[in-house]
Amino acid sequence: MGKKNKQFVEKITAMEDDFAQWYTDVVKQADLVDYGAVRGTMVIKPHGYAIWENIQAELDRKFKETGHSNVYFPLFIPESMLQKEKDHIEGFAPEVAWVTHGGEEELAERICVRPTSEVLFGEYYAKNIHSYRDLPMLYNQWSNVVRWEKTTRPFLRTSEFLWQEGHTCHATADDAQEETARMLEVYKDVAENYLAIPMLSGKKTEKEKFAGAEYTLTIEALMHDGKALQSGTSHYFGTGFAEAFDIRYLDKEGDQQPVHQTSWGLSTRIMGALIMVHGDNRGLVIPPRIAPTQVMIVPVAQHKEGVLDKAYDLRDQLKNLIRVGIDPSDKMPGWKFNEYEMKGIPVRIEMGPKDIEKEQVVLVRRDTGEKEFVGLDKLELRLPELLEEIQQGLYDKALTHRNEKTTTATDMDEFKKILEETPGFIKAMWCGDTECEEKIKEETAATSRCIPFEQETVSDKCVCCGKEAKELVYWAKAY
Amino acid sequence: MGKKNKQFVEKITAMEDDFAQWYTDVVKQADLVDYGAVRGTMVIKPHGYAIWENIQAELDRKFKETGHSNVYFPLFIPESMLQKEKDHIEGFAPEVAWVTHGGEEELAERICVRPTSEVLFGEYYAKNIHSYRDLPMLYNQWSNVVRWEKTTRPFLRTSEFLWQEGHTCHATADDAQEETARMLEVYKDVAENYLAIPMLSGKKTEKEKFAGAEYTLTIEALMHDGKALQSGTSHYFGTGFAEAFDIRYLDKEGDQQPVHQTSWGLSTRIMGALIMVHGDNRGLVIPPRIAPTQVMIVPVAQHKEGVLDKAYDLRDQLKNLIRVGIDPSDKMPGWKFNEYEMKGIPVRIEMGPKDIEKEQVVLVRRDTGEKEFVGLDKLELRLPELLEEIQQGLYDKALTHRNEKTTTATDMDEFKKILEETPGFIKAMWCGDTECEEKIKEETAATSRCIPFEQETVSDKCVCCGKEAKELVYWAKAY
Repeated sequence: MGKKNKQFVEKITAMEDDFAQWYTDVVKQADLVDYGAVRGTMVIKPHGYAIWENIQAELDRKFKETGHSNVYFPLFIPESMLQKEKDHIEGFAPEVAWVTHGGEEELAERICVRPTSEVLFGEYYAKNIHSYRDLPMLYNQWSNVVRWEKTTRPFLRTSEFLWQEGHTCHATADDAQEETARMLEVYKDVAENYLAIPMLSGKKTEKEKFAGAEYTLTIEALMHDGKALQSGTSHYFGTGFAEAFDIRYLDKEGDQQPVHQTSWGLSTRIMGALIMVHGDNRGLVIPPRIAPTQVMIVPVAQHKEGVLDKAYDLRDQLKNLIRVGIDPSDKMPGWKFNEYEMKGIPVRIEMGPKDIEKEQVVLVRRDTGEKEFVGLDKLELRLPELLEEIQQGLYDKALTHRNEKTTTATDMDEFKKILEETPGFIKAMWCGDTECEEKIKEETAATSRCIPFEQETVSDKCVCCGKEAKELVYWAKAY
Repeated sequence: MGKKNKQFVEKITAMEDDFAQWYTDVVKQADLVDYGAVRGTMVIKPHGYAIWENIQAELDRKFKETGHSNVYFPLFIPESMLQKEKDHIEGFAPEVAWVTHGGEEELAERICVRPTSEVLFGEYYAKNIHSYRDLPMLYNQWSNVVRWEKTTRPFLRTSEFLWQEGHTCHATADDAQEETARMLEVYKDVAENYLAIPMLSGKKTEKEKFAGAEYTLTIEALMHDGKALQSGTSHYFGTGFAEAFDIRYLDKEGDQQPVHQTSWGLSTRIMGALIMVHGDNRGLVIPPRIAPTQVMIVPVAQHKEGVLDKAYDLRDQLKNLIRVGIDPSDKMPGWKFNEYEMKGIPVRIEMGPKDIEKEQVVLVRRDTGEKEFVGLDKLELRLPELLEEIQQGLYDKALTHRNEKTTTATDMDEFKKILEETPGFIKAMWCGDTECEEKIKEETAATSRCIPFEQETVSDKCVCCGKEAKELVYWAKAY
């Protein structure tokens, strides 16, 4: 036969034994992705894509509420255009995929498959912005981008990924900086309130900022293994691109002024955070607000008369209240329990002949495994409440975990000891020198994650050189 | 200054004078698209993209209702994989964009930027389909595709376009053929009931079918200039790809069987049909059900006290009922009238001090230009009704136009005379020989659009060779 029939849910590696393998097992066994044919590409399967669609829907709603319009810009950028902004091309050139032939014909100029679209938007804004009346211009696009990465892992680092990229133009620096902060807040809101992932927010150091930006704001999450994951970034460009692309507007006094720009992006990478923050040794755990199926009905002893009918009745009763599924297949209930636990469905409803007799069902929480018996007449009240309890429970648990794994270091010995024994976020003072930042990376493999908006003084000296400290930085090993 | 300030709505070329130029003017002046930097690519601007989003939403809802799941497959296909199905590669090779370098490194194998994704889905299905329990497998993806075209026009033929492509696997030929027909019906439904475009449906000839398909079903629309536009296609593959990619399942008797496949696609090309079916010499006309803004409120004499306040009140009153906008900018009302006519907004509400006094507004239909005075207390009843009248009116007008431009030819002289004098769909009998089909194309530039599902006998002889006729074919010059 040559093909394996998936009759049993396969075991996954325990996270404590091999976290990387656990991750790979979960993305495969929970039916999130499959590997593409070209190195580093991925197929996003129905279950994975449905979660992404829910994340998209929330973000898109908030983008529109904050006045943004969706657009679509081309996949292709001529090489000469990419080179207009010096820092930008330097940052992206090493990871660009190049198109050299169209059909049989060799192209006169190489074409870049977009790694990001600042230059295309820049060119467009130069042509389409005329006066202060055109500002602000607030665009967003949902698209695929390509970055030719050496080592790849599903969601975390892939040659092609899906994302949204916002690109905006403003009359003043203040307006643009407000936008930069506003969109970071939108990301933080969706990450915390929908994905149930607590986010640390702050500014990237000069070394870690986006190629071509004046500064970059970031939200950072802490994974179960103590590594950080950058989950969304918002960049303030000042007038750098405006000068390079000649994007000017006529102000109210009749003078030509360069626009002030921002860009911000969030990608399928955040699916990696979802997996590594909430997942456990039985597989994925999806927060209810983002779960494609919030509740799965599994009939027990469904061959007995009336069981399947009652299960369908229950599904019909609940379907306008919550996102509910039912599995009437002829697989064993135990198989189904494992399958939907692996897939991270927040609540399972078990319903057998005895339950029907007693006019009750069993609710099983995916996150804690807790069971409760609930009368059929109480279900419409209890289920939405339970889903909210799970949502809050997941957030609280992740926050506790992050707090436990956030420690303070005042010198490099302490810094290294922490990384070895209790890896997580390390709060440490920094003098502001890139040299110290690079030295820390070299010696510990930890990178600066951000200069947090909420500053504290944990010491008056730089953790690395011992000179006068300028600010607090969060450090961590990162994905 | 060097930049033109858009203070006046620019005139567009009259359709009667130069239809191609009229089209180009409309897509530009109605703010639908701008040109990309790489030949044949386009920027879809907010107004154009919002229409596409509405088309997407309707289709996506119907795909999900008919049991399909969304997925995302990679942009990149290795050259060797593309070559697995012979007819398919022959059809697409001349228009493929090739990636040859990743960063600095030359790739060992050239990579194709997907022109369509049959082979990627084929490879996936071969790995992921095991038994009859896995069937049907019903996938759809929303994505960009690239076809390196020689001559391009916005929406109609672009090097990159947006579309959805459905790919499904079934246990039997019957199931797959039913799916092929079902999805064509979904397209026809959305095209007719949302885009208000009457569609002719039928089967493509052997010559015109999709590369690698057993047969292709199509919906065809007639543009204002009498040319046809293929608006959506649904392909039945039989077991061709299944044999090439070894996609097999274990049937209930325990035997290995090849799956039967379909694919179906609808693209941003349909935006071209929308423009060329409903547009007029004042610009775009959007059917209400698909219009991002259905009603635009234009305050008149808005500097007078209370006018703007009342206009905002009206907007707030209507916003949960219909998609309503308001333009409070300091441009002249006449400018605004022209602007929203150009953009095709179905209804304009004019509201000035006198109207406010009389507790009424003026409603102006975009399609007919008719005005009516409506009391404020009647508006919530009248507006939805008016929008439906416009929707139906647009469909009826397009149908009348198509009927007027559909004629019958029984020999080639008649055929040519029609094409010259009253171009449109020509119904003519055909012997079934590709030779005749090619001769007609050579002599008249008209192509076979489809063998309609609703057959008639308009003659017993082939319009071209005079031999015994096999079936009725619709012919037309086409985009």
